[in-house]
Amino acid sequence: MIKWGIVGAGNIAHSFSKDLALVRGGELVSVASRDLEKAKGFAAIYGAPNAYGSYEELFKSNTVDVVYIATPHTSHAELSIAAMNHGINVLCEKPIGVNKDQVKEMFQVARAQNVFLMEALWSRFNPTIKKVKEMVDDGSIGDIGYLHADFAFYALDRDEKGRLLNTSLAGGSLLDIGIYPIFLSYLLLGMPKDIKASAHFFKTGVEMQVSMIFSYEKAQAMLYSGLNSNSEMKAEIAGSKGSIYIHPRWHETTGYTLEVDGDSTVNEVGKLGKGYTHEIEEVHTCLNSGKKESSLWSHKNSLDLIEIMDTVRSKTGIVFPFE
Amino acid sequence: MIKWGIVGAGNIAHSFSKDLALVRGGELVSVASRDLEKAKGFAAIYGAPNAYGSYEELFKSNTVDVVYIATPHTSHAELSIAAMNHGINVLCEKPIGVNKDQVKEMFQVARAQNVFLMEALWSRFNPTIKKVKEMVDDGSIGDIGYLHADFAFYALDRDEKGRLLNTSLAGGSLLDIGIYPIFLSYLLLGMPKDIKASAHFFKTGVEMQVSMIFSYEKAQAMLYSGLNSNSEMKAEIAGSKGSIYIHPRWHETTGYTLEVDGDSTVNEVGKLGKGYTHEIEEVHTCLNSGKKESSLWSHKNSLDLIEIMDTVRSKTGIVFPFE
Repeated sequence: MIKWGIVGAGNIAHSFSKDLALVRGGELVSVASRDLEKAKGFAAIYGAPNAYGSYEELFKSNTVDVVYIATPHTSHAELSIAAMNHGINVLCEKPIGVNKDQVKEMFQVARAQNVFLMEALWSRFNPTIKKVKEMVDDGSIGDIGYLHADFAFYALDRDEKGRLLNTSLAGGSLLDIGIYPIFLSYLLLGMPKDIKASAHFFKTGVEMQVSMIFSYEKAQAMLYSGLNSNSEMKAEIAGSKGSIYIHPRWHETTGYTLEVDGDSTVNEVGKLGKGYTHEIEEVHTCLNSGKKESSLWSHKNSLDLIEIMDTVRSKTGIVFPFE
Repeated sequence: MIKWGIVGAGNIAHSFSKDLALVRGGELVSVASRDLEKAKGFAAIYGAPNAYGSYEELFKSNTVDVVYIATPHTSHAELSIAAMNHGINVLCEKPIGVNKDQVKEMFQVARAQNVFLMEALWSRFNPTIKKVKEMVDDGSIGDIGYLHADFAFYALDRDEKGRLLNTSLAGGSLLDIGIYPIFLSYLLLGMPKDIKASAHFFKTGVEMQVSMIFSYEKAQAMLYSGLNSNSEMKAEIAGSKGSIYIHPRWHETTGYTLEVDGDSTVNEVGKLGKGYTHEIEEVHTCLNSGKKESSLWSHKNSLDLIEIMDTVRSKTGIVFPFE
């Protein structure tokens, strides 16, 4: 039985813990929050025996095999490294770091400490996305010519000090949700040969929308993220022989539609729980077989992804005050 | 009764003539093709009394009030100008010219000859598009933040000498179908402040796909056209208060979905015939009231549109050998 610790007790920690309860072979053992009462309340809900009022206490507690880092972006690198330095395996929320320097250092520590480290890019393990990746790779829709994916929701009415609208917390759309369309294009088409991008900024200084064109040898991807309106979030992958539409919201989808020669087939693939289950299963599989990284979402994959995001940022002038 | 002539006897001339038969107040009187037998056959189908084996004969025939120019792009300017120089009003297929110099000259001739001239941007007169324009203008979905529209179909297996894949005929996706997404963005958001674009080219030298980012004061539009795969062709206009989805294929749509506060309403607006009817009605209204241009799709609108397309071409290296 793999013993899990949760670092941070916000919304995503709750969603993750609910899903963890659905997966065999793992159990939530310890919870840490900077607020001890919050940690205790969280632990009580999910039946975790241990609650801590600081992250360091959890790391020192010798109670867990692996921790899930569920804090804001800006603390991912520091807390992951702290956990690994205590010999703890880590699943860290996406983006695993806010820039490539951070991510490089994280993987260096993982190698030095000989622990497992993975970015919690949960969509990679979604059964529909896995199926779509297989279909694209085996040529089911021919040569890919066009990919369109977006992720946007209206958030400009939120707390300006909060995570999304605050530059000090690496706010804006790109790192939080733009990462998903970028991930999909990278997963299916690889590293782009050329990137064009434009961003608009909110009064707090965060980027509130970014449009991107990724050019490949024979294909183009149009990718978008935004906080100033919603988007449908149906992803489209179009090839010379047919198209795949990943049903909304595509990053947590339960199915896809395949269109070939004018025939349209709706496929319900399903998922377990909200879908964090599938990345949890991957962590279990890796830990049980002694693997230090996932072959489905490797260290290289995370490094490539942050490199692309760094490029988009440099082209659009997205900078954070702490860098 | 307004007497129509058709210049060219290809697919779109047929579609147009079928729709013309559905509209009151106009009738097809004359048909011209470089092939007299083709013109006669065409005229017979639609009950037109006159058929000509050259365009010039039709222009000289004194049989028509207005002609519809339905030939390939590269002859639009020349034939429209020839017709106008005979005092004939003109509805010219889109793009009205292949570059701004041509379009400017066409409108100069229209003014000099005091005749009506309009680009056949039929989507402008589609009842759903008109409704969407009104809703965007009256703030139904708040401030627009994001627009996504594409138009793509697989055509790389077509005749390489044909219109689409031949640089000498101004082939490629941009002028033929990219004009539609560009039109929608221009109609709803106006002239972009910045344009980023990337194109890929086919072995015949034509551009086979082009991705565009149009930046406005507070909004971005992601526009795409391509010949190397299909696209769904559902257009999305997203604002701070809600979203409008124009049903596929959006450029000839019969309805839209409005989404506000999580409530989704499907609206079937309908259209008459294939939809050329609505631009024909606009031509009739203008001619009957002595107007020399449409207020819904004015000379300025056509000049703006070709200016945008010229900009996209200059940014992506799309050039035609005859320029």
